[in-house]
Amino acid sequence: MALQQVLIAGNWRDAHSTKTFRANNPATKEPLADEYPVSSWDDCDAALEAAAAASVVMRGLTGDQIAIFLEAYADRIEQRKDELVELAHVETALPEAPRLGDVELPRTTNQLRLAAAAARDGSWANVTIDTSTGIRSCLEAIGPVCVFGPNNFPFAFGSISGGDFAAAIAAGNPVIAKANSSHPGTTRIFAEEARAAAQSTGMPAGIVQLIYRTGHDDGERLIADSRNGAVGYTGSQHAGLKLKAAADAVGKPIYLELSSINPVVILPGVLEERGDALADEFAGSCLMGAGQFCTNPGLVVLLKGGGSDSFVSAVAEKFSGASVGTLLSSGVEKSLAENLAALQAAGAENLTPDATASGNGYCHANTLLRVEGSEFLKSPASFQAEAFGNASLLVIADDVDQVGVIVDSLEGNLTGCIYSESNGKDDAAYDQIAPRLRVRVGRLLNDKMPTGVAVSPAMNHGGPFPATGHPGVTAVGIPASLIRFAMLQCYDNVRPHRLPANLRDKNPTGKTWRMIDGAWSQGDVG
Amino acid sequence: MALQQVLIAGNWRDAHSTKTFRANNPATKEPLADEYPVSSWDDCDAALEAAAAASVVMRGLTGDQIAIFLEAYADRIEQRKDELVELAHVETALPEAPRLGDVELPRTTNQLRLAAAAARDGSWANVTIDTSTGIRSCLEAIGPVCVFGPNNFPFAFGSISGGDFAAAIAAGNPVIAKANSSHPGTTRIFAEEARAAAQSTGMPAGIVQLIYRTGHDDGERLIADSRNGAVGYTGSQHAGLKLKAAADAVGKPIYLELSSINPVVILPGVLEERGDALADEFAGSCLMGAGQFCTNPGLVVLLKGGGSDSFVSAVAEKFSGASVGTLLSSGVEKSLAENLAALQAAGAENLTPDATASGNGYCHANTLLRVEGSEFLKSPASFQAEAFGNASLLVIADDVDQVGVIVDSLEGNLTGCIYSESNGKDDAAYDQIAPRLRVRVGRLLNDKMPTGVAVSPAMNHGGPFPATGHPGVTAVGIPASLIRFAMLQCYDNVRPHRLPANLRDKNPTGKTWRMIDGAWSQGDVG
Repeated sequence: MALQQVLIAGNWRDAHSTKTFRANNPATKEPLADEYPVSSWDDCDAALEAAAAASVVMRGLTGDQIAIFLEAYADRIEQRKDELVELAHVETALPEAPRLGDVELPRTTNQLRLAAAAARDGSWANVTIDTSTGIRSCLEAIGPVCVFGPNNFPFAFGSISGGDFAAAIAAGNPVIAKANSSHPGTTRIFAEEARAAAQSTGMPAGIVQLIYRTGHDDGERLIADSRNGAVGYTGSQHAGLKLKAAADAVGKPIYLELSSINPVVILPGVLEERGDALADEFAGSCLMGAGQFCTNPGLVVLLKGGGSDSFVSAVAEKFSGASVGTLLSSGVEKSLAENLAALQAAGAENLTPDATASGNGYCHANTLLRVEGSEFLKSPASFQAEAFGNASLLVIADDVDQVGVIVDSLEGNLTGCIYSESNGKDDAAYDQIAPRLRVRVGRLLNDKMPTGVAVSPAMNHGGPFPATGHPGVTAVGIPASLIRFAMLQCYDNVRPHRLPANLRDKNPTGKTWRMIDGAWSQGDVG
Repeated sequence: MALQQVLIAGNWRDAHSTKTFRANNPATKEPLADEYPVSSWDDCDAALEAAAAASVVMRGLTGDQIAIFLEAYADRIEQRKDELVELAHVETALPEAPRLGDVELPRTTNQLRLAAAAARDGSWANVTIDTSTGIRSCLEAIGPVCVFGPNNFPFAFGSISGGDFAAAIAAGNPVIAKANSSHPGTTRIFAEEARAAAQSTGMPAGIVQLIYRTGHDDGERLIADSRNGAVGYTGSQHAGLKLKAAADAVGKPIYLELSSINPVVILPGVLEERGDALADEFAGSCLMGAGQFCTNPGLVVLLKGGGSDSFVSAVAEKFSGASVGTLLSSGVEKSLAENLAALQAAGAENLTPDATASGNGYCHANTLLRVEGSEFLKSPASFQAEAFGNASLLVIADDVDQVGVIVDSLEGNLTGCIYSESNGKDDAAYDQIAPRLRVRVGRLLNDKMPTGVAVSPAMNHGGPFPATGHPGVTAVGIPASLIRFAMLQCYDNVRPHRLPANLRDKNPTGKTWRMIDGAWSQGDVG
């Protein structure tokens, strides 16, 4: 059993630490062999210093140079795929196949390559050239980015491999990664490969650094430090809001993805049309990966009567009969149990009382709760506590008007779905509800569960507070996610040879999209 | 002497208030006749309610409808130009001509018309269509925007006429305007015309509302209210940071323009080349409008020896000899005197001790201070207190290396300028300093004073904290300034007829720029 080293300034070295931790295997609840340091401020300070130096160097690199690094890194990840999948499985209990090996790992390398393409292409930087005033502007690197990854996607949202990482690097910034404590070993393998890729492609030593954990105070001090540029955080609302307060106090941009119950409204017509299929679709979406998705449908609003009774029964039956997935950690198990108890204390009825946990390791019985709309409206906040895991709450509304009021009471969410009958029977209800749901969610879906988050340039994996910290940006989708880690830089009367390449008259790549005198163009100026 | 009414939900009505205030004529220091209410929470609550209702209606309007309102409003402003100029002059002491009538008012109506054009065109919304996944997204209205305007631009940054107002409306949001207490009457005239324009163009009653002042607690409660969407604030750092804390705590986007000393670096070669002209240019820029510009050059860094001594003498002479402008308020006068005293207490030498205030009303002698670079570096923060007004601090550095260290010690600023010799003599120094200044400012200038802020699509009137609250966005420049008051809204598998017009296959205007499958296009999909 070895105490693992941190990656600072390009070197693996012993951490400055007084404490250590180990991760558990969620399937056995047993601690894993490796021990990881809880870094003291000295490590944070050294990482900031190296990141600041790397940031200066990276501002001088071309997008192509950064792309070459990202692509080399993606290749290396694929070469260690088996090891990554095996260790991530041990650390998270997520299935090796198809989940980790066939879905999440390819998604991760795809994201890194899309980010590389965005860096190379340069169109993400929103170049704006106004020849009449001699003013030109574009987005440029914001400086070192601290990335805090979540527990539920060890690859695709990992602090040294996921979407925030890819976006921060592609925008020209070094990353200081804080590993998620549930999968430090997986993160370490990524760091090894990122370091090797950085060395082979001539990147500065501080481009990617890894610290496993810090004390809370040091974490807040790290992100608020003047050498830091911005923060990407995905995780619990509690910890996220503490970091947000620390960053806000010094005006440091922080991008958070915190929590979401992803309301789904199922209208009467579609229940009549294909209620059985919907019950399948919903139960499958809700229990997949033991429900541990940011976009898991945690709240379903139905109308009393019609097909809703049979839908509810069918879903309850599926929940009771389905196998029970393993949860990511004792913390997830504990908080799921607590939040479900709180929902029941608030007045929700458990429709799956007979279901017993038969999963391995950390787990909880698949749980379907139900509450009347009028009851929900007595205390909307109580019924919106996120029960992260294999559970969902059904709300039975009296009528469409009440659905509207329920929707109006919702906090900000990543997604909102409306299912409606295919020939227009539900259209009046849709029109009443959609505009109100629209403003409370980042992504509005029709006739489709929210669980999948395509890496599309049009994706919004974001939404109003408290789902995220800002409703204007997305954490998934390239190139849109890059702009979070950039600052607007304007050049006024700056001599032509001193301009960054993408602001000069000649198009730097021959295909970078630039807004020149009011029109998007891939050409040169003039 | 009448107690003025507030504009709530389309009606001028008596405020709910227990206190009142009057503005002063800065040129006479006498209170003006009209009395204005300090609104209680009831007024804020009513305004929020009406704004929320207006917001729902406005989301259903086309960009063209909003453009028609903005254009009608701009026309009406021009019809009341004489009255606006006269009253603004009385309230601010800014000259009627050319400043208010020939520069600021045309700039204001121009901004409103550019915002109208942006709303009509729709390209600002960053429409992104991904046909392969069926996902489409764009920026849409964020909801009611509270606008707090500054004292120094009663028209162009006014809370009911300026850049934040124009951007918020063009993005489809109602505005709750908080008048600046130094020019409530000017703001009232704008509100009258905005209301009339709204009525004549069929806008909802709550599209533009006016409250003159609130208690601090109510102001913070107003912006943090769940019915509010976002905040635009231009003004003092002290008040701005309080509002920021209130907004941040509930995840409400707030855009601030707070303070900036706008460093100017003048290199030796250019001093030799045209030091006399530069002394003219600098003194003119610094004393214009009694220096009451966000982009006033408040800090100049020179190198010891060479032409700097004669430059310093020439500027000191010009400062001493120039007429003294009237300041906007007793508050500006007081804080200028305090900040200049603090700079001198920190070690700056007053180069204009013989200058005496000969201005009218609120004023302060034109003041040029000087400090050695080594002294500056002993306490960089002390020498960066903004002395808003007709004053500037010269820093005399030992060498280029020290200039770099001074630049590294600067807080975030709106602008940074470097003057260099025209044939390359200063280029080595420029290359050493520019990258370091670049990351500390929103707009980098060459050979040009920062005071002018062109309304260009490439403008960045923004910069790193504490100049603003976020380095990624600009408060001036259309359409870029609109995105601050929008949220990203994604549509996933939403049925075509339910999409907003700009996301449908057919280009809604025939010329809206949209990113379709990776390429910017003004065409239809497919």
